[in-house]
Amino acid sequence: MAETAAPGLSGTPRTRLNRLREEGRAERSDLQAVLRAGFIAHLGVPAAAGVMVVPTVYGFDDRTVYVHGSVASQSLAAGAEYCLTVTIVDGLVLARSVFEHSVNYRCAMIYAVPRIVDDADEKLAGLRLVSEHLAPGQWDYVRPPSRKELAATRLLALSLDEASVKISDAGPSDGDSPDAALGLWAGQLPLDTRWLPPVPDAGIPAGMAVPAHIAGRAGQPAHPA
Amino acid sequence: MAETAAPGLSGTPRTRLNRLREEGRAERSDLQAVLRAGFIAHLGVPAAAGVMVVPTVYGFDDRTVYVHGSVASQSLAAGAEYCLTVTIVDGLVLARSVFEHSVNYRCAMIYAVPRIVDDADEKLAGLRLVSEHLAPGQWDYVRPPSRKELAATRLLALSLDEASVKISDAGPSDGDSPDAALGLWAGQLPLDTRWLPPVPDAGIPAGMAVPAHIAGRAGQPAHPA
Repeated sequence: MAETAAPGLSGTPRTRLNRLREEGRAERSDLQAVLRAGFIAHLGVPAAAGVMVVPTVYGFDDRTVYVHGSVASQSLAAGAEYCLTVTIVDGLVLARSVFEHSVNYRCAMIYAVPRIVDDADEKLAGLRLVSEHLAPGQWDYVRPPSRKELAATRLLALSLDEASVKISDAGPSDGDSPDAALGLWAGQLPLDTRWLPPVPDAGIPAGMAVPAHIAGRAGQPAHPA
Repeated sequence: MAETAAPGLSGTPRTRLNRLREEGRAERSDLQAVLRAGFIAHLGVPAAAGVMVVPTVYGFDDRTVYVHGSVASQSLAAGAEYCLTVTIVDGLVLARSVFEHSVNYRCAMIYAVPRIVDDADEKLAGLRLVSEHLAPGQWDYVRPPSRKELAATRLLALSLDEASVKISDAGPSDGDSPDAALGLWAGQLPLDTRWLPPVPDAGIPAGMAVPAHIAGRAGQPAHPA
């Protein structure tokens, strides 16, 4: 699948794959594809007694993923490594036995010591990546962040250097097992995630048309392949 | 909202709410509602250098949530606390400024020292909870786990005693701010997640009808309110 000369993802022990039915995608382009397809991540934050897993929006470029730092940075311990996981669920795999049931999904796990973004230019650029990933076209349509708002926003940067990507997209694997003789139905139950038509705020001018960059998303898949 | 006499969720410092626009739901029934509506969780596992965030299926009853332990239990450190987070994304909130943009979601975060389920009866009951939560009706339709399969399956139990629930389900909050004078469109872009018609495995008997407990899910919302 690799069409890029960028180096493959690192293969440290914990990013090696050890689950059944999952196919490791060792190329950087696969990591970018999962990040492109998702828009919510779960950030694992080391805490005193254990961990905290916080859902967050994100944006990214070739080398870095940016996340809002609010909760996460409260407990930012110097040098502690975070894990950022993006998971897209594509469906259920219904097999002929309980044991063979599974889920089809695309998942990227990124391990990095987060960096608080202090540089004003990088902060603005990082926030723009987050905003445009979630809501393309909004950055130039709405009022940009004020100096005060920028100061009140914490942004974390995580390097994409160490990551693993797992993709599971097959049907049940017991079609040629003894369980096939049970004569049971087996297959996949795919999941479809789409944007619905936008719902205007009560306060907007009467009869105002929905801008094309928003209206055009209605009916579109939220996690394209 | 509470219709139960069960105690409210604990209010330890970290489960107190400190984000804007989010409404804390302090009742146990709200936790159960989020767990019912989701089916994938992100488990935060304490690791030597930091943390690991692993997507996993789950099942639950009034007091306990069960998750597959495969990856997670490899590094099960005695007494370390895990965090299990279930997030359902309901849509985007498109405001009149970048700063006011947000996401509508339902989220439950559970903190617990996990327990490896050894008791055979509890393991079977816990696996049934997981299976029936993901695929209702399959447990009694397909071949149940063999003794060998049960032994090969690790199941973790996490108490629901300490948890927080956050629900954000409002439109943009800047309708009565100075930004309203900008005359921009603002509103919500809701997300719709539904099961598609089941796709039969190539190996099943030709012309076999899809069982009602599977066929009936097509078109149904995957994360009902």
